[in-house]
Amino acid sequence: MSIDIAKRAEVLIQALPYIQNYYGKTVVVKYGGSAMEDESLKKAVMGDVVLLTLVGVKIVLVHGGGPEISATLKKLGKESTFVGGLRVTDKETVEVAQMVLAGKVNKGLVNLIQNVGGRAVGISGMDGHLIEAKMLDESLGYVGEIVAIHPEPIKDLLEKGYIPVVSTLGCDKAGNVYNINADTAAAYIAGALEAESLINMTDTKGVLRNAQDPQSLIARLSLSDIPALQESGVVTGGMIPKLACCAHAVEKGAKRAFIIDGRVPHAILIEMLTDEGIGTMVTAE
Amino acid sequence: MSIDIAKRAEVLIQALPYIQNYYGKTVVVKYGGSAMEDESLKKAVMGDVVLLTLVGVKIVLVHGGGPEISATLKKLGKESTFVGGLRVTDKETVEVAQMVLAGKVNKGLVNLIQNVGGRAVGISGMDGHLIEAKMLDESLGYVGEIVAIHPEPIKDLLEKGYIPVVSTLGCDKAGNVYNINADTAAAYIAGALEAESLINMTDTKGVLRNAQDPQSLIARLSLSDIPALQESGVVTGGMIPKLACCAHAVEKGAKRAFIIDGRVPHAILIEMLTDEGIGTMVTAE
Amino acid sequence: MSIDIAKRAEVLIQALPYIQNYYGKTVVVKYGGSAMEDESLKKAVMGDVVLLTLVGVKIVLVHGGGPEISATLKKLGKESTFVGGLRVTDKETVEVAQMVLAGKVNKGLVNLIQNVGGRAVGISGMDGHLIEAKMLDESLGYVGEIVAIHPEPIKDLLEKGYIPVVSTLGCDKAGNVYNINADTAAAYIAGALEAESLINMTDTKGVLRNAQDPQSLIARLSLSDIPALQESGVVTGGMIPKLACCAHAVEKGAKRAFIIDGRVPHAILIEMLTDEGIGTMVTAE
Amino acid sequence: MSIDIAKRAEVLIQALPYIQNYYGKTVVVKYGGSAMEDESLKKAVMGDVVLLTLVGVKIVLVHGGGPEISATLKKLGKESTFVGGLRVTDKETVEVAQMVLAGKVNKGLVNLIQNVGGRAVGISGMDGHLIEAKMLDESLGYVGEIVAIHPEPIKDLLEKGYIPVVSTLGCDKAGNVYNINADTAAAYIAGALEAESLINMTDTKGVLRNAQDPQSLIARLSLSDIPALQESGVVTGGMIPKLACCAHAVEKGAKRAFIIDGRVPHAILIEMLTDEGIGTMVTAE
Amino acid sequence: MSIDIAKRAEVLIQALPYIQNYYGKTVVVKYGGSAMEDESLKKAVMGDVVLLTLVGVKIVLVHGGGPEISATLKKLGKESTFVGGLRVTDKETVEVAQMVLAGKVNKGLVNLIQNVGGRAVGISGMDGHLIEAKMLDESLGYVGEIVAIHPEPIKDLLEKGYIPVVSTLGCDKAGNVYNINADTAAAYIAGALEAESLINMTDTKGVLRNAQDPQSLIARLSLSDIPALQESGVVTGGMIPKLACCAHAVEKGAKRAFIIDGRVPHAILIEMLTDEGIGTMVTAE
Amino acid sequence: MSIDIAKRAEVLIQALPYIQNYYGKTVVVKYGGSAMEDESLKKAVMGDVVLLTLVGVKIVLVHGGGPEISATLKKLGKESTFVGGLRVTDKETVEVAQMVLAGKVNKGLVNLIQNVGGRAVGISGMDGHLIEAKMLDESLGYVGEIVAIHPEPIKDLLEKGYIPVVSTLGCDKAGNVYNINADTAAAYIAGALEAESLINMTDTKGVLRNAQDPQSLIARLSLSDIPALQESGVVTGGMIPKLACCAHAVEKGAKRAFIIDGRVPHAILIEMLTDEGIGTMVTAE
Repeated sequence: MSIDIAKRAEVLIQALPYIQNYYGKTVVVKYGGSAMEDESLKKAVMGDVVLLTLVGVKIVLVHGGGPEISATLKKLGKESTFVGGLRVTDKETVEVAQMVLAGKVNKGLVNLIQNVGGRAVGISGMDGHLIEAKMLDESLGYVGEIVAIHPEPIKDLLEKGYIPVVSTLGCDKAGNVYNINADTAAAYIAGALEAESLINMTDTKGVLRNAQDPQSLIARLSLSDIPALQESGVVTGGMIPKLACCAHAVEKGAKRAFIIDGRVPHAILIEMLTDEGIGTMVTAE
Repeated sequence: MSIDIAKRAEVLIQALPYIQNYYGKTVVVKYGGSAMEDESLKKAVMGDVVLLTLVGVKIVLVHGGGPEISATLKKLGKESTFVGGLRVTDKETVEVAQMVLAGKVNKGLVNLIQNVGGRAVGISGMDGHLIEAKMLDESLGYVGEIVAIHPEPIKDLLEKGYIPVVSTLGCDKAGNVYNINADTAAAYIAGALEAESLINMTDTKGVLRNAQDPQSLIARLSLSDIPALQESGVVTGGMIPKLACCAHAVEKGAKRAFIIDGRVPHAILIEMLTDEGIGTMVTAE
Repeated sequence: MSIDIAKRAEVLIQALPYIQNYYGKTVVVKYGGSAMEDESLKKAVMGDVVLLTLVGVKIVLVHGGGPEISATLKKLGKESTFVGGLRVTDKETVEVAQMVLAGKVNKGLVNLIQNVGGRAVGISGMDGHLIEAKMLDESLGYVGEIVAIHPEPIKDLLEKGYIPVVSTLGCDKAGNVYNINADTAAAYIAGALEAESLINMTDTKGVLRNAQDPQSLIARLSLSDIPALQESGVVTGGMIPKLACCAHAVEKGAKRAFIIDGRVPHAILIEMLTDEGIGTMVTAE
Repeated sequence: MSIDIAKRAEVLIQALPYIQNYYGKTVVVKYGGSAMEDESLKKAVMGDVVLLTLVGVKIVLVHGGGPEISATLKKLGKESTFVGGLRVTDKETVEVAQMVLAGKVNKGLVNLIQNVGGRAVGISGMDGHLIEAKMLDESLGYVGEIVAIHPEPIKDLLEKGYIPVVSTLGCDKAGNVYNINADTAAAYIAGALEAESLINMTDTKGVLRNAQDPQSLIARLSLSDIPALQESGVVTGGMIPKLACCAHAVEKGAKRAFIIDGRVPHAILIEMLTDEGIGTMVTAE
Repeated sequence: MSIDIAKRAEVLIQALPYIQNYYGKTVVVKYGGSAMEDESLKKAVMGDVVLLTLVGVKIVLVHGGGPEISATLKKLGKESTFVGGLRVTDKETVEVAQMVLAGKVNKGLVNLIQNVGGRAVGISGMDGHLIEAKMLDESLGYVGEIVAIHPEPIKDLLEKGYIPVVSTLGCDKAGNVYNINADTAAAYIAGALEAESLINMTDTKGVLRNAQDPQSLIARLSLSDIPALQESGVVTGGMIPKLACCAHAVEKGAKRAFIIDGRVPHAILIEMLTDEGIGTMVTAE
Repeated sequence: MSIDIAKRAEVLIQALPYIQNYYGKTVVVKYGGSAMEDESLKKAVMGDVVLLTLVGVKIVLVHGGGPEISATLKKLGKESTFVGGLRVTDKETVEVAQMVLAGKVNKGLVNLIQNVGGRAVGISGMDGHLIEAKMLDESLGYVGEIVAIHPEPIKDLLEKGYIPVVSTLGCDKAGNVYNINADTAAAYIAGALEAESLINMTDTKGVLRNAQDPQSLIARLSLSDIPALQESGVVTGGMIPKLACCAHAVEKGAKRAFIIDGRVPHAILIEMLTDEGIGTMVTAE
């Protein structure tokens, strides 16, 4: 018998303690960035999700879809204005966002998961009142701020054995629909589910002590470390809201939150089932 | 006390035997036509659906959305060709259909139901492998023919107390997505669920013995009556496939199928909870 | 289609928010007065009870039967003495009360409910130790005072889908049987079940501010309003104990208690499923 | 330690195989005769019923009450006529029967069982449609013949841990009430429950080969033995319908039926938990 | 009928209140001494255990096996040294203890119980991590001290209807196996299960006020009585640890603990189902 | 990131379809040979068992222990005679077998599984009547032949989340204990559980077409292939009963049976979770 087979068995057996650790726990994956654009990375993510489901992890996949929305708006000849990084979202724009997120991206992910053998149901934050929202700022239009998460639809789907795929639209009691930032929604959902982990897939290595030095990754942060990192300028730009989402999730009940490098194939699996941590972990203490 | 209140009580109490009859049963409503376009009719349908849910009926709402698809294609500058009444559906078109049906129409209906107090979850035929399909005819592209219905996702949502709203997309094992005729899908779903009734909302009075005479409505048909009605030319045009769907549902396990006039406000409620039948009922015998 | 049908649909749909409100809740109806004597009112009450059951309300029907007891005692040649409005109840009298309440009245109501399509099981306060009682006053004999309610038999019957019909006999640990005032028993049961409502059917309009003016109905009272109403003489005579029962139910855990006019056909339905309140509602605050 | 204690332990331990045999099984006891009149026998029966419940037997107690009905009718000055051993039962008479059986006797038995520590719920054949009946013979009035047994109410009470006590009234779909022979009703109920045993308590030793010789008891009969016994005149008079009931129960699904001597204290316990059979057992083969 | 049968019924019926008292409760029996050596006593104990199971008591049988271990060690030519009454237990000795306790004694008891009609599963403290232990004293070797009881395996077996038979081996997280004193283990298990009773079968009458006078049995002790009894010398020798075990069980959650005379046939049954207490009962107060 | 991590992820992801295939299925492993003697192989097997449990496979571990029995008999100075390869087993010998199998080997395996993080309960065929046996041949003494498998104890333990470890002793209704061949017992158990697979760990490569050529392994056999292989002399010696066991399991309801080479580390994992089959598979067709 080839040595290779023995090694393969060893790899499987080394995953054992990690699997034991996550068995029966809920993990919210915020899916986005390159991992959502590159076909081969996409397939790798779906494989990871299905494998983790089989080894007893309850995976919830939360996604946005900004680039797809922009592309469809462009096809429709509709220009977008951005204020402070946020798209000004009129009625027509939020309708397009709804179509793209809940129709195109969400069902596309359901399809991909099922192609590698999982069973998924795609819902939006509108279904079963999952995400209750309100207008964040009148000048931005239908950009939503989360008022409450009602996690029953996700729990019901998990209980019935499906992988919930969630697009981050919300609505208010008057029936207005809002586009919600997916990082934020994933953090709130992870908190409301008291998830074992929130995994935020990004296009960075994680939090670097020195932005120029990829070796300076900070592997682990506690909530109390974050303010100093911001004040000292170590954490800047897009990393600030990412870290804030991690912090929010942990404060609201998730045990841990990770910022991982979605450009690495099978980054989720590596983070969860090996001793090679990828990226930065945030915990309460 | 005003006479009016006494009458209202009488109306409620007269509904009693009908409610008893439907208690705990499953009813599939194929929603479409004017009832899906007129705002006031839309609201009336949603009220009916929520009321029936409360009195113990398990409602499944199945919808298409041809006009919305056409409108969006038009906005995108994409022309449609029709062959034998069916839209030739290339890859781009089926993607638009997916966006419009699963994103816009489906979530819009979920929102409406929830605004009148129901709890709904919108899924497509892709979720949980609900509708397995294949290509109907290569020259039509991604127009699907149903291979099998896997009704578990609908049953799971009903069991958890949600009103399932279903957009009729299907996919095959290779992951190709197909647009499916909604009448046909509703009929297959009603059959697979062994529903008490399939209710097909149309813009006609039902089957008329004499197309010119609205008083000539045929209130009740058995499967064996249909061939003669077609041969004799009583049933023609668009009514032929509608009747065929009713027949299919009944043959596959539904107890009854109705073609009702969706232009009448609260047509579903009137059909189900009063002794004034609306439209035509098809039964096995 | 006749206008009449449209109106009927409207009536049904207007009941929707009320049904939503009561869905899955427990309502204790104290049945008595004219509504228990007039054949047509009786039938109307049974229809209301069955309809409410179907729309998801858990109805418990509590009844007394003073006039029937008197009639049977008379047939047996046994005279009754009353002290302070309470029948002096010797051993023979309580045996007759038991026969009449648990045998004649209770089973008669079960029969009526089932004739309009419900499923009922009639029990007394003796079954499953439902009402634990003791002697109220030695000079009154077997007139009981409630020591404790053990509501499991009612809960078990509701869980199994029956409408519990309860005759208000109680017993002590030595096995002595007592006749219990039905208003009081209904109030204690509503409290022990933490019912959504106690509905007390009477032969009055409710609490009137001016006994001479039927338009002076007080629609809503809070517990704190009651003492002043008694002191000022607004509430007098038989209304005093009725109000006290409402107050007791609310204090012990029921959300609301109503005194309604049982002489109005379908008074329960009107009170519960329309916006035309009938009678007086008592709430904690 | 006294020898007596050792013997008591031996008695308990000798009951072991009998208890094992009946564990979890349903036994229908038709209660009547002296065992229902003598105070000390009554108490012994209730003790037996509660003990058997505790050792895992599901006891259903079915009772009639002819003598009590006669006594009450007499008090009311109402004469009874008997035709072929059956009371001619007009409307007034069946109302008295209902009061006496469901009100007086039934609740009295519930009370007795609860006094020795059991939990009982008393129902009649009217509750939950338990006994569906029709008129046996117009000239007899409201004497009922059983059309169907719907055993759910008994099963539901057993499942919830109560001892069901059943008075044998039945009704038809029009709501007419009938008095049903208790031996017959017990036999039908035992059959419908597929009971392990029907135990019919009588004032005889069982079936005697020679009516003059109490030692000539026939301990065991199979269905096929009965016709010959009747033809040869061994079985006569009141024993004929008793045996017919046993036969009916066994034919419809009960495993065994016993005619036992209810005049012996603890006859049920002796029959069931010792090797001293009392009376006559009927089995299919 | 012979007087004897009537007496047998009386004995059964007198057990009723005791059975009611223990119904559904858990009782831990520490089995040992003569009751485990004499064949006829053994059979009597097994009968008691099975009978109690049938009348609704959840029996857990805990056993040691010192004499059997000694006998096997002797056959293997291995001498034992005792220090302070405890066997010095090297690796080889604990292996023999494991074989004898979990293999010979445990399965032998399972077999005996099943021969009298029970269903038993034998486990050791190693199975399902039931007994977590550590070394008591290095000089004694693998003599274990209990660190924690994880009672799930016992609860799971009880729930599935088995009589758990437990041999008192424990292990630590490194996988070392320890021999545990069975009295102590039974006490800890009774505490962890919050048992209704711990019954410790011994070869004494119980606690005697005067060791010379068998009539001086102390029937009942509370925890606070024990220190004085020890100081005054009433309790000495082997009775000291027996009483300490009773005290431990009661302190940790068991309601009562008994020291009974296992030389009396059916001592458990007599203690539990008659009013003749055997031995000494310890309660909290 | 090192290439190594990527490979590890790939290995995990390649196991996905195999895991999906076995998810929720029952696999009976007959443990024996070198895999049970070599310390490092032992640990590898336990790791495999625990990992498979976590990925949703229901593993049942069945073991014998001939060499251990021989060693203990030898220490006790007891000689064994073998007839036709079977040990002549007198009363004393079967007692030693019981001690060694159920006490030493069984609990040792439980301990090992728990050391790598599993939860195991060890039972014998005597517990819960798992293996009902009779004497195979009087001249062999207590060597058992299986009469029936009562698989409830295994099913109950699996349902409660334990890994059942089974030692293959059986008993008859008189309480006689028998030593049962472990290969045979494993095959009967796999059949009675309708297992997905029986995996028989041996010290051979599997069935070789040419005993001299390790490359001549027959990877797959159907039941109908076996007679010819025996007649032609391809299958001889110890492989004959091994194959017969595989055939028995498949005939009685197991889907597949494997003879695998237990000398290869992680042979079970390799067989089940990779595409490198090890050994020979037997299927019905």
